[in-house]
Amino acid sequence: MKQSPVLEHLIESLRCLPGVGRKSAQRMAFQLLERNRPGGHALGQALLNAMDQIGHCEMCKNFTEQTRCQICSNVKRDASLVCIVESPADVNAIEQAGAFNGIYFVLMGNLSPLDGIGPAELELEKLEQRLASGDIQELILATSSTIEGEATAHYIRDLARPHNVAVTRIAQGVPMGGELEYIDASTLARSINERRKLDL
Amino acid sequence: MKQSPVLEHLIESLRCLPGVGRKSAQRMAFQLLERNRPGGHALGQALLNAMDQIGHCEMCKNFTEQTRCQICSNVKRDASLVCIVESPADVNAIEQAGAFNGIYFVLMGNLSPLDGIGPAELELEKLEQRLASGDIQELILATSSTIEGEATAHYIRDLARPHNVAVTRIAQGVPMGGELEYIDASTLARSINERRKLDL
Repeated sequence: MKQSPVLEHLIESLRCLPGVGRKSAQRMAFQLLERNRPGGHALGQALLNAMDQIGHCEMCKNFTEQTRCQICSNVKRDASLVCIVESPADVNAIEQAGAFNGIYFVLMGNLSPLDGIGPAELELEKLEQRLASGDIQELILATSSTIEGEATAHYIRDLARPHNVAVTRIAQGVPMGGELEYIDASTLARSINERRKLDL
Repeated sequence: MKQSPVLEHLIESLRCLPGVGRKSAQRMAFQLLERNRPGGHALGQALLNAMDQIGHCEMCKNFTEQTRCQICSNVKRDASLVCIVESPADVNAIEQAGAFNGIYFVLMGNLSPLDGIGPAELELEKLEQRLASGDIQELILATSSTIEGEATAHYIRDLARPHNVAVTRIAQGVPMGGELEYIDASTLARSINERRKLDL
């Protein structure tokens, strides 16, 4: 490469973004330099600020630059209802759905013994402390419907058993607007096995 | 959005990258925060450095943090052979092809009167000065085979005429490895009209 070292360094650095290869990184660098230097500058500053300032909420482990995140510190939210999710992106998805007014516990991953991720890595002792404190009435398990997600949900259910709280799992079945013809077999089987009685 | 303002600002800032929408920006931000904070920090710093330090080479207008870029200041390159290209990305492409040992003149765009881009915006007077100095023997027009690229090549050819330099245009025709069946009609017509006599 006969490029300037500063430009070359920028292109290499852009590749740490997910889904960005050499060609895209080059395109991004040229685009910012040619057409949007203020934007590039603002992005650089935003990255430094975020990496330095953003930590984890002491209650739910979600990203926040405060000790306690906006959801956990909102008195209008029902703190007795705790939804367990895998990642901050899941919190966003549920918030956008607008059907939940409790608070969260963000695992930041799933149990995965082969990768060395056990209960300690997910800081499940924080959840246990909250369960022991008696503030929680219901625990909603909203981990993914994958093998790891199910295993994690299973483990947390066992964890909650001694504490006299209701434990629920989000409903699994046919997605809204999904045509039966195109739904995979295991989803369809589950939606039949877990059919709901209708009020008549 | 119930996200922390610092995180929200990072997500919005990432959207200034080409091809990055809200969802990708969110994925990038979470990925960096969860798995690669040093990388995110390095990227932030690289962006600030690049936006602040990178300017244009006084000779060829390519990006560089020095007064003169690495190619223009390399005494092993033939400064009498100048290749006119549209963008820094084109310089990279030609350098990687490895078939050129002259120097460049990077237009940073094409003539486009409707968008207000005339000879002054492309700083063609810099090229004229170099033509007038008598250092240039051949000018290779390597603008794109688009209407704008052809018009720009045409304009520069007229510019060079009084200066007694050879002006060439890169060969246009069937790409290497291209099957005739799948080549578009205008490329095929040109490749026949501009056929080359073979040595026997």
